[in-house]
Amino acid sequence: MTQQIGVVGLAVMGKNLAWNIESRGYSVSVYNRSKEKTEQMVEESKGKNIHPTYSLEEFVNSLERPRKILLMVKAGPATDATIEGLLPLLDDGDILIDGGNTNYQDTIRRNKALAESGINFIGTGVSGGEVGALTGPSIMPGGQKEAYDKVSDILEAISAKADDGAPCVTYIGPDGAGHYVKMVHNGIEYADMQLIAESYSLMKDALHMSHTEIAKTFKEWNKGELDSYLIEITGEIFNKLDEDGTPLVEKVMDKAGQKGTGKWTSINALELGVPLTIITESVFARFISSMKEERIEASKHLEGPSPKFNGNKEEFLEKIRKALYMSKICSYAQGFAQMRKASEEHNWNLQLGDLAMIWRAGCIIRARFLQKIKDAYDNNSELQNLLLDPYFTDVVTNYQSALRDVVAESVANGIPTPGFAASINYYDSYRSENLPANLIQAQRDYFGAHTYQRKDQEGTFHTHWAEEK
Amino acid sequence: MTQQIGVVGLAVMGKNLAWNIESRGYSVSVYNRSKEKTEQMVEESKGKNIHPTYSLEEFVNSLERPRKILLMVKAGPATDATIEGLLPLLDDGDILIDGGNTNYQDTIRRNKALAESGINFIGTGVSGGEVGALTGPSIMPGGQKEAYDKVSDILEAISAKADDGAPCVTYIGPDGAGHYVKMVHNGIEYADMQLIAESYSLMKDALHMSHTEIAKTFKEWNKGELDSYLIEITGEIFNKLDEDGTPLVEKVMDKAGQKGTGKWTSINALELGVPLTIITESVFARFISSMKEERIEASKHLEGPSPKFNGNKEEFLEKIRKALYMSKICSYAQGFAQMRKASEEHNWNLQLGDLAMIWRAGCIIRARFLQKIKDAYDNNSELQNLLLDPYFTDVVTNYQSALRDVVAESVANGIPTPGFAASINYYDSYRSENLPANLIQAQRDYFGAHTYQRKDQEGTFHTHWAEEK
Repeated sequence: MTQQIGVVGLAVMGKNLAWNIESRGYSVSVYNRSKEKTEQMVEESKGKNIHPTYSLEEFVNSLERPRKILLMVKAGPATDATIEGLLPLLDDGDILIDGGNTNYQDTIRRNKALAESGINFIGTGVSGGEVGALTGPSIMPGGQKEAYDKVSDILEAISAKADDGAPCVTYIGPDGAGHYVKMVHNGIEYADMQLIAESYSLMKDALHMSHTEIAKTFKEWNKGELDSYLIEITGEIFNKLDEDGTPLVEKVMDKAGQKGTGKWTSINALELGVPLTIITESVFARFISSMKEERIEASKHLEGPSPKFNGNKEEFLEKIRKALYMSKICSYAQGFAQMRKASEEHNWNLQLGDLAMIWRAGCIIRARFLQKIKDAYDNNSELQNLLLDPYFTDVVTNYQSALRDVVAESVANGIPTPGFAASINYYDSYRSENLPANLIQAQRDYFGAHTYQRKDQEGTFHTHWAEEK
Repeated sequence: MTQQIGVVGLAVMGKNLAWNIESRGYSVSVYNRSKEKTEQMVEESKGKNIHPTYSLEEFVNSLERPRKILLMVKAGPATDATIEGLLPLLDDGDILIDGGNTNYQDTIRRNKALAESGINFIGTGVSGGEVGALTGPSIMPGGQKEAYDKVSDILEAISAKADDGAPCVTYIGPDGAGHYVKMVHNGIEYADMQLIAESYSLMKDALHMSHTEIAKTFKEWNKGELDSYLIEITGEIFNKLDEDGTPLVEKVMDKAGQKGTGKWTSINALELGVPLTIITESVFARFISSMKEERIEASKHLEGPSPKFNGNKEEFLEKIRKALYMSKICSYAQGFAQMRKASEEHNWNLQLGDLAMIWRAGCIIRARFLQKIKDAYDNNSELQNLLLDPYFTDVVTNYQSALRDVVAESVANGIPTPGFAASINYYDSYRSENLPANLIQAQRDYFGAHTYQRKDQEGTFHTHWAEEK
């Protein structure tokens, strides 16, 4: 008797995915390096079609061919070590699936190296946390298409389902494409969270709203075009009280943690030459947040205005809503432009509209407006930038004035809104036929003889700019 | 007869440095892979103590011991190839100096590898372009201290001299420290140029100033606290007329080029976890500038306000000046904080005040205010951030209101000022005792059970945030 699929690594993500797979009618072999975790899982899996194994050999031999093995071990050296252990036991055509939080460059490397040994390697993003792993995550698999076709039934079965019933998984592209797309997904998540945090600080510090009012506002916003998981949970967070009856969120230390995928996204944008200002400001904002002690010291020396808001509160709240939606659109426009460039660079042939589709459920950035992104690429698969799609052009043209007011008000009041400010500056830069970079080119030609092009003529020019003295 | 130093690679930088060295009374052997360049240099060096050689062996044998060899070849594989060719011909204690535009990580690698063969390796930043190479650059050497001591007389002789006569060179630190500092220097240069470009676009698009007025303004500014090479050449650039009598800078294509050191600086800040928002926005601004055709298309669809300025022109111009100086201070504060962190990370023991000193002449970012940075570190060598030095605290506290007005006016008028906006947001974030990152931590704990710390208690906490439904 052989099992249909195996899972290596039985920490919470691996265990939950194994149970998810089993719940869809598949038999599952499981293996963990330390047998205690395996025994514990057996204990918790009574009555389930879960088959424990206690050596890699036993594990591999327990699987039907071609073998399908899901690796859920810590990203990095542990993944390499596990692959090394498995490799001598595998046969041509077997399929390894890495579901860890792996850097796409490692996935490209492993896919190439394993292909030389006849082994298929799928690197897949899995978003949705522990609960998603058990009940249905959004899944972003990349690797050999023919290998994907052999596991697609399982991945579709365990994935989240959108409201229209579509599974939140699709073949992303060759080698590292799946982990790449998951990385950008996480970067986008950083910006979504930063923009919501800036909205909160304006409600609190400029409008002096209570937590009940803030909760009510986010719940209201969640009924409209901002409808999304992150807005939904934000509404709930503001209603959560501490034991003393005051809002718990105010007790939470304002040092934002991170696991690195946000900064990977920014680093990749810098390498690709793609402007990714909003996600990058969000990553930097987390860095600054972590410098709590330094900020406390600085707050004693560096002065600013006392927040003072004189306008109409309801109207300004609506402007914040518009600023948030427009900034979110600018951030996705940047992230999707980055994926478009990466796709060209790596010949991945990413289907950008499909990515929006598989993010509609299961993952952290699930949101109603993703359908608009899908529509945009359906209308024009060669769309250079989301802002140029008619729906998005219309929104940002109508909302830009609100975003301007919110940024101006924040700056005047000394309330940091780096994400909003980066958004309006991206919008204004992107829509500028002329930017002052002509001066930069003239300076570079002055001091470094770097030469320049002209607006009115073809060719390469160099000028002796210095004045005679 | 042996020569005192040798130069490999006779493109313009190598040739000019060789002549500079010779002009200080040293005898120089030169070598180039293709002999045409060597022959040409011989032709141009009549009467000079320059000794051509036509094989690496002849070159190495022509030098006194320990040999001092300056490599001026293209950064990257060409440098490795040259080192490989030289290595079998060298003896213990010889000194290789890489003066190319090398990534500091390569310098760390080469320094370690060569040390195992008994060869000293100095990686040095050289700033000042072609003219600086010939007449006196700012020099940033890193590597073995004992090797530096053997070449310090030559490096001091050829370096730029500050107004007080001090040579613009000092020992930076071990292995890659010199090239690292040169990298950050270049990143700072990107921000300096971007901030000047933003000032220019406000003068032109908001204040509708003529190029003569703009030139006059920069020349005026160059007499005060903004006194610097980049402000000086900017003033000259605006006076340069094209053949048709109109300002030449307006004919220059607004697509800013780059050689990569700016983005290396940003990537390194992301890796170190240091906020470097102003330089990074400057790098992204160059990326957006290069998307000229896309911007022309976007300008047809994405609307914005028509710039309209109603205030007092002279007063606003003074606000731009203050905004520029304060943003420059914020940018240097970030860059120096980055070098401080890198120094800890690599055990480089960087003397931050000394860096400001050797940038006072020869290099592109030379400026009067660097003396203030030196003073700040003299007052407090452990200074966490330049903004916390009394002089700088005083300036930014007095100028912040001007910067706020300039950013608000820019945003209202649709004129992109990403550098100014990043500066005020950095200032406001850094001086915030509390940031809204508590919400981000609550969200992360909600969806990923990432746990959180509290402001009022020690420990690690996890909450079930969801509302009962």
